[in-house]
Amino acid sequence: MRNIKLVVEYDGTDFVGWQIQQQGRTVQQEITSILRQILQEDVNVIGAGRTDSGVHARGQVANFRTNSPLTPETLLNALNGLLPRDICIHAAEEVPEEFHARFDAKERTYRYFIAPRPTAIDRRYSWFSKYTLDIGVMNTCAKLLEGEHDFCSFSKLNPELSHSRCIVASSHWFESNGMFVYEIQANRFLHGMVRTLVGTMVHVGRSYRTFDEFRKILNSRERSEAGMSAPPHGLFLESVRYDVSS
Amino acid sequence: MRNIKLVVEYDGTDFVGWQIQQQGRTVQQEITSILRQILQEDVNVIGAGRTDSGVHARGQVANFRTNSPLTPETLLNALNGLLPRDICIHAAEEVPEEFHARFDAKERTYRYFIAPRPTAIDRRYSWFSKYTLDIGVMNTCAKLLEGEHDFCSFSKLNPELSHSRCIVASSHWFESNGMFVYEIQANRFLHGMVRTLVGTMVHVGRSYRTFDEFRKILNSRERSEAGMSAPPHGLFLESVRYDVSS
Repeated sequence: MRNIKLVVEYDGTDFVGWQIQQQGRTVQQEITSILRQILQEDVNVIGAGRTDSGVHARGQVANFRTNSPLTPETLLNALNGLLPRDICIHAAEEVPEEFHARFDAKERTYRYFIAPRPTAIDRRYSWFSKYTLDIGVMNTCAKLLEGEHDFCSFSKLNPELSHSRCIVASSHWFESNGMFVYEIQANRFLHGMVRTLVGTMVHVGRSYRTFDEFRKILNSRERSEAGMSAPPHGLFLESVRYDVSS
Repeated sequence: MRNIKLVVEYDGTDFVGWQIQQQGRTVQQEITSILRQILQEDVNVIGAGRTDSGVHARGQVANFRTNSPLTPETLLNALNGLLPRDICIHAAEEVPEEFHARFDAKERTYRYFIAPRPTAIDRRYSWFSKYTLDIGVMNTCAKLLEGEHDFCSFSKLNPELSHSRCIVASSHWFESNGMFVYEIQANRFLHGMVRTLVGTMVHVGRSYRTFDEFRKILNSRERSEAGMSAPPHGLFLESVRYDVSS
């Protein structure tokens, strides 16, 4: 069987997330059903990251195995011709049979967009903060996260996980096109982690908590200590990195 | 009476344009009706540019006269609280009684966004070109437009206008965040002008016409010579400039 890797962009607004659910429209379901139409065979589409309801992706990665002789380019064009307008495929390529989009991912990059003033055009793709935010202290919080840490304070409890340590390669805030942008790159992410980090850093940025409290929350390993979760529509899965051989 | 100037952002997707029409939802109508609610008096909202159906604005300027004692800041917050989510007000200030958003505008800036690959997230705010575009030759076309020219080849016929000359302060293509962006600043714009310019430059960029033909079209002053009009959803009214005193 051939193994095909896809790079997928989607507007998460009208999805209940990546993963197929009992109810509700999902990205995995849409891609699976269009692939079945094209390939006339059953397919199992594996995604690198299970984005939540309302979360967007510019560079989600997925793979599926097929007996079809169609070239990756033909698949790419057929998918883009048939998928709904809120999903599109940026790349399709044949990869080694053992490649697994989720287990082989070495690093994922997420971005979170905060609009410092109300916006009509970016309302679906950013969180408007009505508070004045000190991006300097938020960046100090962000920098604290770099390296290896236990992030269980910033995640929903998942008894299936053996541990909640993540290695953060980079974590910082910057300004771009009038937006405050948080970017984090790590080897793995826990469920709800980026949105809880952002919500808690915003608490510090608007002086509701201090940097010291933020550090204590990280070290406490108690979810109850962290702040609110930032809403999903500001969050983007930007890219997923694999070893060169994949 | 007091005269209030507003800076307005809107997502043009679900509007039939700025100006009040017999039928269809318009930005001017929405702002007028909310202002009447707040001020409890009749108001006439004047916009700097009558954007077409589907065209967006990040910096439309409008003004209206009122007897209300409400401060500009109160008006701003009341408007943003009551307007639908696809319109928001960025600034409100009191201006001299004679200020007129349309007649006093010295320069308007428009941008047009072309996506060189399919996009799900930016599909409402850019035109996807399935052709490979030579942005270099498109920029040569754009530069030709700087200075004073008669733009009647690139506009719908309007018998009410005494002439169709515009003074273009700057006109160029650049790349930003994976998009091809055309920016033009001029003292005035004719109806449909930016979209026809973009459509015709795209013809040159995909080698369907030459730069020489583009120059001949400009000089011919014949609308029939120009290319197709680019779709409205890639176009943004970015800003309007007034003399410092306004």
